[in-house]
Amino acid sequence: MAEIERPRTRLYVATSLAVASVRLGAERAHYLRHVLRLSAGDPLALFNAEDGEHAARIASFGKGWCEVAIGARRRAPAPESDLWLLFAPIKRTRLDDMIEKATELGVSVFTPVFTQHTAMTRINLERLGAIALEAAEQCERLTVPEIRPPRSLAEALTNWPAARRLLLCDETGSGEPIGESLSREKPQDGYGILIGPEGGFAAAELDGLRKLPFVTPVGLGPRVLRAETAALAALSVVQALAGDGHKSTPGRDQQST
Amino acid sequence: MAEIERPRTRLYVATSLAVASVRLGAERAHYLRHVLRLSAGDPLALFNAEDGEHAARIASFGKGWCEVAIGARRRAPAPESDLWLLFAPIKRTRLDDMIEKATELGVSVFTPVFTQHTAMTRINLERLGAIALEAAEQCERLTVPEIRPPRSLAEALTNWPAARRLLLCDETGSGEPIGESLSREKPQDGYGILIGPEGGFAAAELDGLRKLPFVTPVGLGPRVLRAETAALAALSVVQALAGDGHKSTPGRDQQST
Repeated sequence: MAEIERPRTRLYVATSLAVASVRLGAERAHYLRHVLRLSAGDPLALFNAEDGEHAARIASFGKGWCEVAIGARRRAPAPESDLWLLFAPIKRTRLDDMIEKATELGVSVFTPVFTQHTAMTRINLERLGAIALEAAEQCERLTVPEIRPPRSLAEALTNWPAARRLLLCDETGSGEPIGESLSREKPQDGYGILIGPEGGFAAAELDGLRKLPFVTPVGLGPRVLRAETAALAALSVVQALAGDGHKSTPGRDQQST
Repeated sequence: MAEIERPRTRLYVATSLAVASVRLGAERAHYLRHVLRLSAGDPLALFNAEDGEHAARIASFGKGWCEVAIGARRRAPAPESDLWLLFAPIKRTRLDDMIEKATELGVSVFTPVFTQHTAMTRINLERLGAIALEAAEQCERLTVPEIRPPRSLAEALTNWPAARRLLLCDETGSGEPIGESLSREKPQDGYGILIGPEGGFAAAELDGLRKLPFVTPVGLGPRVLRAETAALAALSVVQALAGDGHKSTPGRDQQST
């Protein structure tokens, strides 16, 4: 069997791809020209949720821009994973890694939440957005996850959609094993996952969370996981058992132009 | 419910804990005295697979050593997760993170394997061992994973135990979804997981692997995962469905001395 055919360069473009060409701004022009060393005529792919993925070619570079000619559609738009991750901010490099890998694992919405024991109080949304964008481009998503501004745990749970189940990763061991929980129930609107800070949730927070009708405490096994490991483990299990883990890498409508 | 009680400092000791005290060497003495700033009388915990976890106290520091008095057993020895990870070496920081998190997820044996498209040819086993040791101490394991010397893929699969199933993370999409595969079969000797390099397996390698009776190709969903993300996702799903995901954080025999 042939190895997977991957476009060498795959860029998310927020504007419509149902046009002959798009002009990319300075940052992306610099990336294409000076980091990837591409020239006029070189192929790439452009994508977004509305138009799917299109073959494309670099038409020309100018001062601070790059004109890209849009070719045939290679992948039709299709619904993607709808999985929310609420997390207490952690140290910068660990947070960056978590955003990257959680994007690969199909998170659609990231919400940083401040809990009682959250040590980190500043968070650079712009940097996290750039990491999520790059991960989405690399992992063949058609969507880029939304990164919401940080808020308190209480605010984040206000107006929570009743039909979306929030899995509380509960390291005190009172939760049901995540595998069992997921094989029993299938919430109408899918799942959210809540990960506490390195210091754990405060006892009062856990008590409050457990009383909410949409919260299910789950356990991730006998080892005490770092916050970002817990997030990636929970996401992986949700995708395998209740998400899009049964799908395989999407095919393409046709070969690259 | 009370928050989890964790020992502040938890050290793996390879020698027997069925003695009154142990003398730790220069590196650990330095760590306890100058990094953690502990003094004589301060509590810690010592553990290994044979003796479980014991409460302990620093007795005294000397030039290049630390004497630790061993107290009551807090956790009995118990069998731990037996899960093997075979992986093509990746870039240093990504590899370090993978070793850390895979240790948290219960890997018992790491085997670096060189495949046709493996870009990295050098691997620092000592550094990886130190990372695995620290992760084991932090995540409440009683065992420290074994890190085997790197070998070729063919060598690594010679004398593979017949009753251990090797899950081949197959990004070409030909594998069965991992959740389905795991819910169907329960191998007598547990699982190994094989992760290819960033460039993927060569077609001939995949063909050869698929013919081995102990290999099951599995898929991890529609997104193309980085090698280390694939490893963590597969480990998480195996633990949840076929490993120790049903267990919760172990209790202690008694309070700390």
